[in-house]
Amino acid sequence: MAIGRESLEKVFKISNPKWRTAITKVEPNRIITRGYSQEDLIGSVSFPEMVYLLIKGEMPSKKESKMLNSVLVSFCDHGITPPSTQAARMIASAGSPAHACIAGGLLAFGKNHAGAIERSMMAFQESIRRSDSENDLFNTAQRFVDYYLKKGAKVPGFGHRYHTEDPRAVKLMEIAQKNDFVGRHTLLALKVQDILLEKKGIKMNIDGANASILSDMGFDWRTGTGIFMIGRLPGLISHVYEEKVLESDFRKFIDIEDVYYDGITEKVSHNKDLKKSGD
Amino acid sequence: MAIGRESLEKVFKISNPKWRTAITKVEPNRIITRGYSQEDLIGSVSFPEMVYLLIKGEMPSKKESKMLNSVLVSFCDHGITPPSTQAARMIASAGSPAHACIAGGLLAFGKNHAGAIERSMMAFQESIRRSDSENDLFNTAQRFVDYYLKKGAKVPGFGHRYHTEDPRAVKLMEIAQKNDFVGRHTLLALKVQDILLEKKGIKMNIDGANASILSDMGFDWRTGTGIFMIGRLPGLISHVYEEKVLESDFRKFIDIEDVYYDGITEKVSHNKDLKKSGD
Amino acid sequence: MAIGRESLEKVFKISNPKWRTAITKVEPNRIITRGYSQEDLIGSVSFPEMVYLLIKGEMPSKKESKMLNSVLVSFCDHGITPPSTQAARMIASAGSPAHACIAGGLLAFGKNHAGAIERSMMAFQESIRRSDSENDLFNTAQRFVDYYLKKGAKVPGFGHRYHTEDPRAVKLMEIAQKNDFVGRHTLLALKVQDILLEKKGIKMNIDGANASILSDMGFDWRTGTGIFMIGRLPGLISHVYEEKVLESDFRKFIDIEDVYYDGITEKVSHNKDLKKSGD
Amino acid sequence: MAIGRESLEKVFKISNPKWRTAITKVEPNRIITRGYSQEDLIGSVSFPEMVYLLIKGEMPSKKESKMLNSVLVSFCDHGITPPSTQAARMIASAGSPAHACIAGGLLAFGKNHAGAIERSMMAFQESIRRSDSENDLFNTAQRFVDYYLKKGAKVPGFGHRYHTEDPRAVKLMEIAQKNDFVGRHTLLALKVQDILLEKKGIKMNIDGANASILSDMGFDWRTGTGIFMIGRLPGLISHVYEEKVLESDFRKFIDIEDVYYDGITEKVSHNKDLKKSGD
Repeated sequence: MAIGRESLEKVFKISNPKWRTAITKVEPNRIITRGYSQEDLIGSVSFPEMVYLLIKGEMPSKKESKMLNSVLVSFCDHGITPPSTQAARMIASAGSPAHACIAGGLLAFGKNHAGAIERSMMAFQESIRRSDSENDLFNTAQRFVDYYLKKGAKVPGFGHRYHTEDPRAVKLMEIAQKNDFVGRHTLLALKVQDILLEKKGIKMNIDGANASILSDMGFDWRTGTGIFMIGRLPGLISHVYEEKVLESDFRKFIDIEDVYYDGITEKVSHNKDLKKSGD
Repeated sequence: MAIGRESLEKVFKISNPKWRTAITKVEPNRIITRGYSQEDLIGSVSFPEMVYLLIKGEMPSKKESKMLNSVLVSFCDHGITPPSTQAARMIASAGSPAHACIAGGLLAFGKNHAGAIERSMMAFQESIRRSDSENDLFNTAQRFVDYYLKKGAKVPGFGHRYHTEDPRAVKLMEIAQKNDFVGRHTLLALKVQDILLEKKGIKMNIDGANASILSDMGFDWRTGTGIFMIGRLPGLISHVYEEKVLESDFRKFIDIEDVYYDGITEKVSHNKDLKKSGD
Repeated sequence: MAIGRESLEKVFKISNPKWRTAITKVEPNRIITRGYSQEDLIGSVSFPEMVYLLIKGEMPSKKESKMLNSVLVSFCDHGITPPSTQAARMIASAGSPAHACIAGGLLAFGKNHAGAIERSMMAFQESIRRSDSENDLFNTAQRFVDYYLKKGAKVPGFGHRYHTEDPRAVKLMEIAQKNDFVGRHTLLALKVQDILLEKKGIKMNIDGANASILSDMGFDWRTGTGIFMIGRLPGLISHVYEEKVLESDFRKFIDIEDVYYDGITEKVSHNKDLKKSGD
Repeated sequence: MAIGRESLEKVFKISNPKWRTAITKVEPNRIITRGYSQEDLIGSVSFPEMVYLLIKGEMPSKKESKMLNSVLVSFCDHGITPPSTQAARMIASAGSPAHACIAGGLLAFGKNHAGAIERSMMAFQESIRRSDSENDLFNTAQRFVDYYLKKGAKVPGFGHRYHTEDPRAVKLMEIAQKNDFVGRHTLLALKVQDILLEKKGIKMNIDGANASILSDMGFDWRTGTGIFMIGRLPGLISHVYEEKVLESDFRKFIDIEDVYYDGITEKVSHNKDLKKSGD
């Protein structure tokens, strides 16, 4: 009689902690993801549909799938200006392998760089959750703006370092409107823009546009940075490739002359004088 | 008269090293990527087309775009089994922010994990470059197999730890054949499979299938790991989300009892006996 | 006449943003760190003194230098049990270069792993700042404990997953007492331990011991994780070396059988049936 | 009767793969590292001795311990000039937590940045292994130099971007000579310097000095980058702290004007014209 591991563990109380997952089940010659066998998915679904399925656990509608495709495309690249791209290229220039350069670039997706998308999503989702009715949306937008302006803080999702009008946000809003994809979060974002434009001359940026669209699709705000990363990864890869293949090694990104030392002036000229400050 | 920076630098020989890039040009309210304005790209191209454009510098054909979509989908997830997924979840369990978990996962895309795709691509591309004619393909495949078997090495792109027949590779080859997308690299891969199947009972895996297809599309082998990363990122994100949101903190992944210590036995019981080996 | 860059910039208002730093000034053949020339530091100061000088900006006293040495030694290694060590070895097993393995290990220094030292330091420093007098220390300790117990939270710096009495904490407290190094933060930590021991049978751990000692030295709590990292790095390096040199590649850390899939059961058996949930 | 897990596994052939390690044995209330209990090590050994013990598996002599201390101190910091420091500060500026900034900095320890120490160590160790006698050292040095000069390559461990005479290397050699710590590897390095100085006016740098000293201590060249990291970590930590605490968020490290775009000129002005190159 064969005694199974499971029954043995039950009898003898050997604990065998297992990992729990609801994403993919791997069996010999068979891989099931979110309930679909991968051989059925490959060739049948688009990559944005796969993104939606993996993260949300279900298939998008055709309309959602097209909209998510535009979102991912819009994140593609912003040249050498973002800190993530600069960090990735610098690490490439130092001679690390491509996967380490990409990882280093993604480490710069901190709260001041990629953080705006999650902050926008959280703020939109929170605001909509607390607004009781459709009619209330203008007041919600007003409270949204006031909250940040009173603190003297930037409104997440609005304004851009380089652009007075972010062309990507404009296009995304156009597409959303043309495809009848303007839900309550996007409507809120548009009303916030109206108020900010009048008060401060500030317009929606790519983070605000995508945050409102992703919120209308029901994405948890904690997945926002991840979705940004998917969109940006191809750009990062091409920057790392460009740096590794086309540029010379170890470029002097910052010259000694570009550094301003404001530390203490020299204390010590001879070894014997080296003093401990605490003694 | 305003004197421009450029002319000043020329006159006074102040060096102002610039970064060179051919990917994206950023101007106020205008972003040009590989010659296309981003507002034209958003809503017009699919995400796989954007991947192709960014990495190869030009637009794919419709056929290439569909095939690349299947490639990206096929990389999506392999449950908790890959070291990248385990590393990402472990870092998530330790309480790091999502972007650091993802970066840590990608650091595991080393030569033993994600390396096979680049090794396959390099080997296919190298072999095809050296084979003089179409007729020669069978001999090329034979030399390909012999090279690894003589060294007693694994053939990159063939065989799998869990699957005797990788269902993703089977499906990708089907799609390539149905869409008339079997170029010389894919033909070589199929012939290598024939030989290996007869000699060793080993079949093509997902890396071999995708390496041959990407090579037929003209992707430099050094971009292979990057393309794998794009496909895998949505899966990694959903694993990190699952770990952070659904699991308890700091799970004891490895118990003391699962560790076998084979170091030296204890030397010291009292502090005064602490001996320096070198004295 | 040579016109300097500086005067040119002044005249023509070319902005040349400089990096500001107070740590090290690099000149040709001359490197000044925190006011000391490096050639004077090398051979004159101990490594812990260098750590103190770099982070705090001044030299420690002899007593502080000895105490910091013990702190750094105490962080050295805890076998394969910490997530940082497991992540580093897993990445090593996947074939990444050593520096990427180490970086991946450090990414696991998240709030649930290395976070306790900074939380302890912050809590001790905050408590001491708000306690008006030496006499008040017992009440401060009481409030400290109550704050966490009322929330049902773990007290940072006390209790350990594996040890009922953390031998490193015991030794560190002994050394602090023997060397007359018990300041207000350490006194507070000892009083907190007294209360917790009586109420819950819980003792100080290595994080609590080091947090109190480092606080008595005047280290800002935001440097705590960094100091832990310095102490732990040699251990991580030896783990990565052990994995890369002594173990086989790509070890199956987690077997398929160790994974419990609790996702949805299979929905789809034939490609044509692949349904979009949202349609 | 209690049946142990071990005997159960034997009987029923349940495989329980264990991790093997020779570094640290963790038992409840007892931690043994390389054969020494940690409570005996804390307070008895210096941090450099701990580094030696962890990496080499045995205690250093007093002389070795002092020398290793100087090596670690000499790596301390080189201002903002290295790519690792720039990457760490850039990631800090993007708002990532300190441990992610440090990890990102270490990712820049690639072959062009930190690689020189391992290349030097490997080259010295290889050369000494192949030189048959003490007398042969001058010829070995000659072959060493010729090997690189013939290839037109930089000699690893010699020459510096900023310094014509690296003050750290000079001091380390002084200390080695004063303490009678000049073994065969260091002697080789000095002879290589003599030849290079005469031929090319190039002197030993910090990597060459430390590579020869660490080789004389018997450190495997594959641990070189790790030892460099230990020495450099305190500097990186103080840079990250400086950036996070003293500087403003998201500094524009690189301005649009500092980027030179040499990609294709714009192809598309209207959406309908968006052409696929491959069609």
